[in-house]
Amino acid sequence: MANVHLPKGMRDLLPPDMRRRLHVIDTVRRVFTSFGFEPLETPAMERIETLMGKYGDEGDKLIFRVLKRGEGGKRGEVDQAMRYDLTVPLARVIAMNPALPLPFRRYQVEPVWRADRPQKGRFRQFLQCDVDIVGTESELAEAECLAVVDAALSALGFTDHVIRLNDRRILRGMAAAVDAADREVAMITAIDKLDKIGRDGVARELEGRGFEAAQVERVFELLDGASVPGCEDAVAGLERIEALCLALGVPEGRVQVDPTLARGLDYYTGPVFETRIPDSGVGSVSGGGRYDGLIGMFSGRDIPAVGVSLGLARILLIMEERGMFPDLDRSIDVFVTVFDAERAPAALEAARAFRAAGQRVEVSYKPGKLGKQFKLAHKRGARFVVVVGPDEAAEGAVQLKDMASGEQSTVPLAEAVARVG
Amino acid sequence: MANVHLPKGMRDLLPPDMRRRLHVIDTVRRVFTSFGFEPLETPAMERIETLMGKYGDEGDKLIFRVLKRGEGGKRGEVDQAMRYDLTVPLARVIAMNPALPLPFRRYQVEPVWRADRPQKGRFRQFLQCDVDIVGTESELAEAECLAVVDAALSALGFTDHVIRLNDRRILRGMAAAVDAADREVAMITAIDKLDKIGRDGVARELEGRGFEAAQVERVFELLDGASVPGCEDAVAGLERIEALCLALGVPEGRVQVDPTLARGLDYYTGPVFETRIPDSGVGSVSGGGRYDGLIGMFSGRDIPAVGVSLGLARILLIMEERGMFPDLDRSIDVFVTVFDAERAPAALEAARAFRAAGQRVEVSYKPGKLGKQFKLAHKRGARFVVVVGPDEAAEGAVQLKDMASGEQSTVPLAEAVARVG
Repeated sequence: MANVHLPKGMRDLLPPDMRRRLHVIDTVRRVFTSFGFEPLETPAMERIETLMGKYGDEGDKLIFRVLKRGEGGKRGEVDQAMRYDLTVPLARVIAMNPALPLPFRRYQVEPVWRADRPQKGRFRQFLQCDVDIVGTESELAEAECLAVVDAALSALGFTDHVIRLNDRRILRGMAAAVDAADREVAMITAIDKLDKIGRDGVARELEGRGFEAAQVERVFELLDGASVPGCEDAVAGLERIEALCLALGVPEGRVQVDPTLARGLDYYTGPVFETRIPDSGVGSVSGGGRYDGLIGMFSGRDIPAVGVSLGLARILLIMEERGMFPDLDRSIDVFVTVFDAERAPAALEAARAFRAAGQRVEVSYKPGKLGKQFKLAHKRGARFVVVVGPDEAAEGAVQLKDMASGEQSTVPLAEAVARVG
Repeated sequence: MANVHLPKGMRDLLPPDMRRRLHVIDTVRRVFTSFGFEPLETPAMERIETLMGKYGDEGDKLIFRVLKRGEGGKRGEVDQAMRYDLTVPLARVIAMNPALPLPFRRYQVEPVWRADRPQKGRFRQFLQCDVDIVGTESELAEAECLAVVDAALSALGFTDHVIRLNDRRILRGMAAAVDAADREVAMITAIDKLDKIGRDGVARELEGRGFEAAQVERVFELLDGASVPGCEDAVAGLERIEALCLALGVPEGRVQVDPTLARGLDYYTGPVFETRIPDSGVGSVSGGGRYDGLIGMFSGRDIPAVGVSLGLARILLIMEERGMFPDLDRSIDVFVTVFDAERAPAALEAARAFRAAGQRVEVSYKPGKLGKQFKLAHKRGARFVVVVGPDEAAEGAVQLKDMASGEQSTVPLAEAVARVG
């Protein structure tokens, strides 16, 4: 390898990876669009003061800072920083565009940058894929967030995903019911780990946070289904959301109310949800909820919002493991050889005809030595190779070789195009 | 507006702009793919030493620098910088991936960042759209670069674009022919401005750079078509490229050899080309050429390459002015009203049916007050509005209103879907 490197934690996406990624992005974009979500793009850099203090002390440390350039900049002065998520920029857009008709449904699929310690599978630039509905308190919005995730995963070929649903207000009610309203966040944080550390682990963590044995016992009773006082409304809301999801075409049983679901981020204010793929070995592939206090941060007023994020990296990983990608290893469909310089125009005319029919066509740039040209065609994964020799060129025909079967025949160009299509 | 701002020279792309941009990107991507070009993505940040010294002193000053983060970073230390173009990252990718089969055809549509003084229409983050063919000296590659630009512009709806073609070696021969081989760059720089400053301007500029009157006269003779000694090969090459373009389906007359075409960048080594849209009021919408000395910068050897860039910002501008966008002002096709909470499921079932048929569908989140819901439907540009009242819900029907004609009728859901499609 030459003496040139990438920055720490950064990576290139070479064509095979990019084809997979574009397949996923194009698919989810089509689904988002069918639900009326609209595309938004914000710049990679924000003003430093827009970002600082929004992600906690730890987050602040992971924000990449950019030096001020151009006139008036003192040496070493920082005035910009790299986008850390897509939610703070959305809040800024809402504040700066008060005339946007609400509700505003937007999707945004763009990279964010975090100076995390790089690990296997964790990079300092990674794609976020968010859909959010800003400006409505309607439960229809929650239902559409769940349905759009279900539709996106289904369009990608998943059939076994499960969406878990809960409401932060029920967890809050639970904390009150066990006389721990002042330790609500501690309780939620512990419950959130149930999957990872089990009931004993959660019990120990709660005790470590000052819960008494009777309180811990009561927490588990409530998690097991005992009704939480004062939360009848939220519970009924979850049932309504489930019913609305069915109407939107989400299959029966795919949405499951789960009283243990907490979702870590403490900005959620109502329903929360996440999606898991059974036996995938990774955590959730999607998570979201209602967060009515956040989007108004720059607008000076509360603006209700609900949204959901798709974890594209995890989705790509599972699709790869399960072989869910349609034939993305081949970069082209047809490889057109060039017999010699004199027959190059005939080869190009063939390429043009296959392209017009929607095929991905590579023309060889090395006339002569057909063996070498076939070797490259094989490397590219071409399904068909075309040869236009002197005889074929003279009569508007081509030799067409099916690389899978090895069959080879000389046919008029139009027929070759029809066979490949 | 709230007290929150964007960084200098940065902008958001709200949905109407994004829809236009995605239309253009999706179209050109489809064309690039049909020519066998493969997608590549590189990180937004490169190591500072990868970028410095590659763009001249002026360029170096415009590179955004990013502070080092994480362990071991001295306060204020810079180790990364924002990507300034897509060519240097391509050269780095080629050096770091010696096993990539050549020729490597890649396209890359990604933002770059330059700390230029912001002006009307010039931003500090902007999209570059490059296709390059690395690892071949074949003129077929030049022809495919011209043909892919023609195909992309044609797919976008342009019919009047003209591609000008020249060869840097002819300009070099011209400098030698007028005894100014040592002032080749000065001569090319002057000729490059012919469009802007006219013959008199170029003559003055050449004289200012030490050319004598007889030399200037001879330059114009050569530009007017006198044969340039020692350039017979390059001239014949341009004719061959023109013929190959015809074979690739580029219409006759679209490619025009123009001895005055220079293209400013001094790294070109062979054919150069650019595309203009007549009467568009902007300069070229595409430019490129062969640059055999650049891609090997990190590999320690010359690697031949030819490439072309599409100026998406200018293309978008012309398409906007000419009204070439297909109906991108509407964000949805169908707006489904919600009569009341009880009929919400019936409304969602209708939404689901229209979505399954490929329509973009927004569901109202405000039950009741149909007037208000119609108003929002109008704002979104919906072509059709659907009402599912108590009578319709009972019998699986919907009221369908055509917003253009004002016609309204009650029909079974399936028929409504068929009418809209």
